[in-house]
This record gives sequence, C-alpha cells and structure tokens, in this order.
Amino acid sequence: MPNEPKPTNVALPLEDMLAASSASDWRQLEPEDTLYIDFELARVVIELAPAFAPLHVSNIRKLAREGYWDGLAVVRVNDNYVVQLADPLADDPVRKRKISSASETLPPEFDRAILPGLPFNALPDADVYAPAVGFTNGFPAARSDEEGRTWLVHRYGTISAGREVSIDSGSGAELTAVIGHAPRQLDRNVTVVGCVRQGMEFLSSLPRGAGGLGFFKGDDADLVIKAGRMASDVPVSERSFIEVLRTDTPFFARLIESRRNRYDEWFHKPAGRVDIGNVPVPVRTA
Amino acid sequence: MPNEPKPTNVALPLEDMLAASSASDWRQLEPEDTLYIDFELARVVIELAPAFAPLHVSNIRKLAREGYWDGLAVVRVNDNYVVQLADPLADDPVRKRKISSASETLPPEFDRAILPGLPFNALPDADVYAPAVGFTNGFPAARSDEEGRTWLVHRYGTISAGREVSIDSGSGAELTAVIGHAPRQLDRNVTVVGCVRQGMEFLSSLPRGAGGLGFFKGDDADLVIKAGRMASDVPVSERSFIEVLRTDTPFFARLIESRRNRYDEWFHKPAGRVDIGNVPVPVRTA
Repeated sequence: MPNEPKPTNVALPLEDMLAASSASDWRQLEPEDTLYIDFELARVVIELAPAFAPLHVSNIRKLAREGYWDGLAVVRVNDNYVVQLADPLADDPVRKRKISSASETLPPEFDRAILPGLPFNALPDADVYAPAVGFTNGFPAARSDEEGRTWLVHRYGTISAGREVSIDSGSGAELTAVIGHAPRQLDRNVTVVGCVRQGMEFLSSLPRGAGGLGFFKGDDADLVIKAGRMASDVPVSERSFIEVLRTDTPFFARLIESRRNRYDEWFHKPAGRVDIGNVPVPVRTA
Repeated sequence: MPNEPKPTNVALPLEDMLAASSASDWRQLEPEDTLYIDFELARVVIELAPAFAPLHVSNIRKLAREGYWDGLAVVRVNDNYVVQLADPLADDPVRKRKISSASETLPPEFDRAILPGLPFNALPDADVYAPAVGFTNGFPAARSDEEGRTWLVHRYGTISAGREVSIDSGSGAELTAVIGHAPRQLDRNVTVVGCVRQGMEFLSSLPRGAGGLGFFKGDDADLVIKAGRMASDVPVSERSFIEVLRTDTPFFARLIESRRNRYDEWFHKPAGRVDIGNVPVPVRTA
C-alpha cells in the first residue's frame, strides 16, 4: 500500500470532499427525534434513535415535555470518558426532581433484532469488539449475524441512558455523553439513545470533576441546564436547523475510503484502514 | 462468554486493583527523559521515548535548555483530536522564536527496527490498524514482525512532533498532544516523542479554537507556556514525583485482563476484548 502511487481521485481533505456533495447526500433532523439541551452558553443537539431504543426515546420525549431537565445540571465530567446530565439532588428523596408522566425505570434496550429494512453500511475493516461495525441511518452500529442482533456503539458523542447496577434501572432521565476514546466496553451494557449532532465542543471542554469518577463535589451552579426540549415543541424560530450527512450513500462510501487512505499531501503512509471511532458523520447548518 | 459464571478473581475495579499492587509494579520517571511544560494553572508532565525517537528527544532536551518554549503558547485546540504547543509567530520570519543550539529539522523517526532487548507486552486481541499492539516500557506500541518494525501509536495523551508536508521538517519544537479518540491514521506519519503522564485534564478541557483545524484566530494570551524544562534541570524541590505502573509485569497483565472482562458489579456483558485506546497506564504521586 505505501508504495503504490497515490490515486488522484481520493485526494481531498474532508472539507473539500463535502463541498462536492449534493443536496441529496444530506438529511434534516426530524424534530420529533431531536432533543435540545440548552445551557446558558451553548445548545447541545441530540439526535435520538427510536429504531434502537423505542421505549427510552418515548420516555425522553415525555421527560422533555414535563420539563424534567430544566434546572438540573452537569453532575460529572470524567476526563477521556463521559459527561453526565442528571439531578444533583437525586440522592435526596425529598428534594430530588419528581418524574410525573414518564417512567422511572425501563427494560434495557441494549441491542435489538436484525430485521429487513434496517440499513447497515458496514466498514470494510475488522473491529476489535464486534463481528462487524458500520452505520445505520447515521448512527455508528455493530452487528452479529450469528446472534441476529445489532446495537449502537459507544464512541465520541454517543448518548446513553445512565442506570444503576440493575439492568432495568435506567429511564433516560440521566444522560451520559462520551467525550473521549470510544469506550466500547459499554456496548450492550447500557442503552444507547442517540448521538450529539451539535455542541460536543461545549461538553468536551467542560472543567473535569474533582471527585471520584469525575463527579463534582460541590457547586454545580455554572453548569445548570436551562431547558431540555424536543425540537418539535420549540417554536420554529428557535430551532437549530441542522443537516446530517447520510451514511447510506455512494458519497459516504467514498468518504469512508478517503478516511481509510488519507492521500492528501501531508500523509506519508495512508493507514489503509479505519476504525469506527475515526469515521466522522459531518453536520452542517441548513 | 456472557453466559459463563463471573470469576471471582478478576472482579476488581481499577482503584481496588491498584491498591493491591506492590512497589516493584511501579517505576519512577527518569528526570532526563521527563519534560515539564508549565502553565499558570497546571503542569503537563511528558515522558519522552528516546528508544523510539532518539534524535527528537535529544533535540527536545536542547530546546528546553535554551528556553525555546518559554512564553510560547497553545496555538490550536482541535476538538476530539489534538492540542498544539507552538510559536504563535512562527510564520513571521522576524518575530518568530529563534532556535540556537537545537536543530531546526530532523529526519523522521516514524518507526524503528525490532531489536532484542526492547520489551513488547502484546495485547491478546487483534487491532484494526497493526498486526500487533501492546506496550513497550509503558508506551503504547505496535509492531510488524513481517516488516521487522515497531512504532509508538497515537492515542489519548500521545505527544508527537509537528511537521510540515516534508517528512523531515519536524524538530520537536512544535508538540501536539492527542485529546480525543485514538487518531491511529497518524501512526508512522509523524514522530511520536512521548506520552503525557500528568496534566491531560488541563489540555483536554481547554477552550476549542474557532479557526480551521482548531487554530486560534486571535489572542492566545491566556494559554501562554510559562516554561518548558527537563525535570533534570529543575531543582529537586520543584519536581513532580510521579510513578508510572510498569507494563512488563504479571500485575499489568492482570490489569489488561480486568479491562477485557469487566466483572465488576455494574457490567452485564463483559466485552472479552480491549483495544489499545482503552488500556490505562496508571500513574501515582510518589
């Protein structure tokens, strides 16, 4: 590979590649599947994955509609691991935020059956953790044909539903966002509910928590969540119009290939491979 | 694997495992191979890797001794990728920091020959990018027996020598630290000079640069480097006494196994595998 001549047709850096995309290579986020977590300084836009976590996504919609997250906070920033959005008073039975319309716990949705109609655009390279990895409708996913199961994988930007030791103790009320190296050991151990499509720079650059596992020890006042809302419940004038690159197109296949073989000028020895953590799913403002 | 009973002998979380280590499982950093980059708010401690980048490490010692980094800055914070320490005036031929005793450019040290005496403690699992990965004296490394070559790999905390397009344009004057998912496409494309052993939380939580590739567009004043010094040139009273867990011990092999199979109470389905990005090399204050 390194001694082959560099092909001129896969030479472009990402921005230049994207400039050559067409409108049909992009899709808009569905407002009913889009959760906004608004902070004073930033909006975090999360695309939910009802195809993989229907119970949790339905519950997250209810939680947003009852204003569950409003005034809650970032309670944990664990370096090279996760940010956690939750109730700082969760351990106080009196003062903790009450859940009204939504469920307090749900059965796990760690993986699901492979069914026809669920696209899977596989990466050409092997994976350390799963028989195959790729993308399903823009979400990084893994599958095992032998088991007949597929699941969303943890990588930078993955949103999961926090849970206690019991596997049916999560609800989507407590959300974690991966801010470091893909913690693939979490795959099939926690319900992945979606991906951050905008606002990762805000989450990943938050000051790390000084307590164990990155929990904050004291004042969380500057990390308060102003509001958590479904995009469909926000006035059109206040929505973030974001387009996400489709992952089931010939264009995306070329993007993967360009990530496998970085033939732009700077690269001396293209890897010839790519792992699921190094394939970007670009977004743009519509 | 998921249906096997959980063995009770690999059940411990990392902190509990480390509590059971003995003094001989740890090593102290060599002051002559340790670079301190001091900021107003934090010290970044870098362990250099002369076994893999002898020319660059020798040059970095010279750069530190001529005070090259003093007053330079963080010029780039690229989300989920790298932080870059360099001269904000590098493009100004008159005002840029001059290099006196050190070399301005060096031949690449992207990989090296496999020789007896260089330990390699391999991970038991496959890797997406290389025939084998593991650790050499505490540094994450890859090797190809077929090529007879070994190299340090890029993951969270890896320090590389920035270069221009020409492969012999680096010197160690410009340093990059990985702050995101392991960018393994950089392996063998740039000279890895070491690893951050302390201070990653500071680097990874810096505000992201708003310019292209995360470069800052304007004022870098709050990200100034106070001083870059070899630990051996710093008075003993000002040194950071850090111990790093050895990676060539039975204890470290058990640590890898505990990362492959997370049998602590919370994990429902241990992965049975681990990638090079998910094996920590713990440090402690001596």
